Amino acid sequence: MIPTIKWEAGLVRMLDQRKLPSRVEWYTCRGYRDVIKAIEKMVIRGAPAIGVAAAMGLALGVSSIRSESFSGFKARFRAMAEEMRLARPTAVNLQWAVDRMLSMVEQMSGQALDEIRQALRRESEDILVEDIDINKAIGRNGLELVPENATILTHCNAGSLATAGYGTALGVIRAAHEAKKGVRVIADETRPWLQGLRLTSFELMEDGIPVTVIADNAAGSLMRQKKIRLVITGADRIAANGDVANKIGTYQVALMARAHRIPFYVAAPLSTIDLKTPNGNRIPVEHRPGQEITRIAGVELAPPGVKALNPAFDITPATYVTAIITEAGIIRPPFKSHIRHIMRSTHPFSS
Amino acid sequence: MIPTIKWEAGLVRMLDQRKLPSRVEWYTCRGYRDVIKAIEKMVIRGAPAIGVAAAMGLALGVSSIRSESFSGFKARFRAMAEEMRLARPTAVNLQWAVDRMLSMVEQMSGQALDEIRQALRRESEDILVEDIDINKAIGRNGLELVPENATILTHCNAGSLATAGYGTALGVIRAAHEAKKGVRVIADETRPWLQGLRLTSFELMEDGIPVTVIADNAAGSLMRQKKIRLVITGADRIAANGDVANKIGTYQVALMARAHRIPFYVAAPLSTIDLKTPNGNRIPVEHRPGQEITRIAGVELAPPGVKALNPAFDITPATYVTAIITEAGIIRPPFKSHIRHIMRSTHPFSS
Repeated sequence: MIPTIKWEAGLVRMLDQRKLPSRVEWYTCRGYRDVIKAIEKMVIRGAPAIGVAAAMGLALGVSSIRSESFSGFKARFRAMAEEMRLARPTAVNLQWAVDRMLSMVEQMSGQALDEIRQALRRESEDILVEDIDINKAIGRNGLELVPENATILTHCNAGSLATAGYGTALGVIRAAHEAKKGVRVIADETRPWLQGLRLTSFELMEDGIPVTVIADNAAGSLMRQKKIRLVITGADRIAANGDVANKIGTYQVALMARAHRIPFYVAAPLSTIDLKTPNGNRIPVEHRPGQEITRIAGVELAPPGVKALNPAFDITPATYVTAIITEAGIIRPPFKSHIRHIMRSTHPFSS
Repeated sequence: MIPTIKWEAGLVRMLDQRKLPSRVEWYTCRGYRDVIKAIEKMVIRGAPAIGVAAAMGLALGVSSIRSESFSGFKARFRAMAEEMRLARPTAVNLQWAVDRMLSMVEQMSGQALDEIRQALRRESEDILVEDIDINKAIGRNGLELVPENATILTHCNAGSLATAGYGTALGVIRAAHEAKKGVRVIADETRPWLQGLRLTSFELMEDGIPVTVIADNAAGSLMRQKKIRLVITGADRIAANGDVANKIGTYQVALMARAHRIPFYVAAPLSTIDLKTPNGNRIPVEHRPGQEITRIAGVELAPPGVKALNPAFDITPATYVTAIITEAGIIRPPFKSHIRHIMRSTHPFSS
């Protein structure tokens, strides 16, 4: 499996997801601002992967801090962290990773700067390794929800490429495939960025998991024809009440799944759950340039000057979610109390 | 307004809709098989426009018939008509136009072949002119359904380019605009062929009607935010019970409109209603090459060998349709009896 992001010779390297699958190119970050730019431009995307990138970006950034004192270091690191937070607004894993790195620095108050630098680097590596373990646990936990020979619809890419590896939604699918459940996947192509067409299909084909790509427009019709047994997606942020922010189009998939009595599952690490956000209305939804819609493969397809509205995410109300699959187990309704319970008992960084 | 299709120097010329809006190119048909190919390859598309093209194609084709006798002529013309019928399966207007041309030939039994040729040419011209009049009547009839300052969602292109001119769904929108109702349009980009991004936006911008393009994935979210007041689409075939075949994705738009209590209107000429098809399950849904999904602007974006499923249409059950806007008036539920009534009282070619 090709890693999504890695340390190499003291630099952070990412698989450039804008180019996949036609070209496998590595994007090299020499400083934390390169990482911010990479997140903004979607060289790397997917909530858990963005979290890992932010942590690695901060660890990369500290090598450029020249302060003599801890307080000087800390002030500079905090500024860097605040800059990193702004890279993209919706995925809370970015905030989570930044908070975790900040807390690391707090804990090392007064220690030698070199040691802090090394500890931050190790912390970023831990986050990466943990993320893979978390995804494997999500996969195991989700297994019971996947019937034999099921056809599963997924939206966007919540796979290896959206995480440090293995994936969340695709983690469950991979686990089911490894358990020889005979699953098949229908991948929404996921306009405008085509994560499904380009990335999900690529990952699943690499792993020999049967996948068929459809235009997002065909999902409802396939549900009506009973050709989809369940839906699994990832999440960019889950509010305290279970409302889910995820890739634009997820809401309508969830709504259609409900209308056709098809289970709609969200697979996400606990770091995606944001207890500080009471409900979906409070989740900031990023709007990206209209050109992501009008220009495809470098070719402008719309009339010059056309207006295009490009919300990158939408909010799926908790009422449409059948269950949330996490590394700590499956969360079922009522989500508010169950989320609070699972976060209190298992998650150290939930504040 | 640029015509969609026209006679020119004895040949049929079509605006090549595969190239729009970046290039305005004319596609010339020298024989009826060129017209069949143009319909298959979507040089021209949209149910009413396909009907016009089929009629013009047959009128073009007769000039190549060298039979001396009426019966020889008729046999050859029938073979040509049967070939034309197969160009695309879903839009019933194609069948309707072929039947109309066949009936013309029947009526002229025994007349001079030159006269028959001229009559068929005139008939095709009549169909074209009538279609524009029909669309204007649809527009007038739909006017009462459009509130002041409404934002209207439309899917695909049911505009001037999908008809001989003025449009069905966009005909209603044009009429509302001309009546200074202050309408604004949200155009689903309509993957995979991007009729909304390329054609609807182009037409509406030409006419100065405010239009914003969205990814199909954003429609549900906008409905949830109460940013869409009503939906109007065209149709490729309407069954006797009111089930509607239309561009893939229409079903999910209708389902979402229902879930958000937004009216969902279908605008179509009576020639789109097929009394011989009792319900939507009997409407043949064309599946087109997967490459229409994976290759955009000539660039292959998916992994080599990926499977893609590309149904070009879907079926919206009549229960999701608020009303059907026709040239003979607005048809409301119960559709089965109301459709039968309106077809009996007004439509000469409904068999």
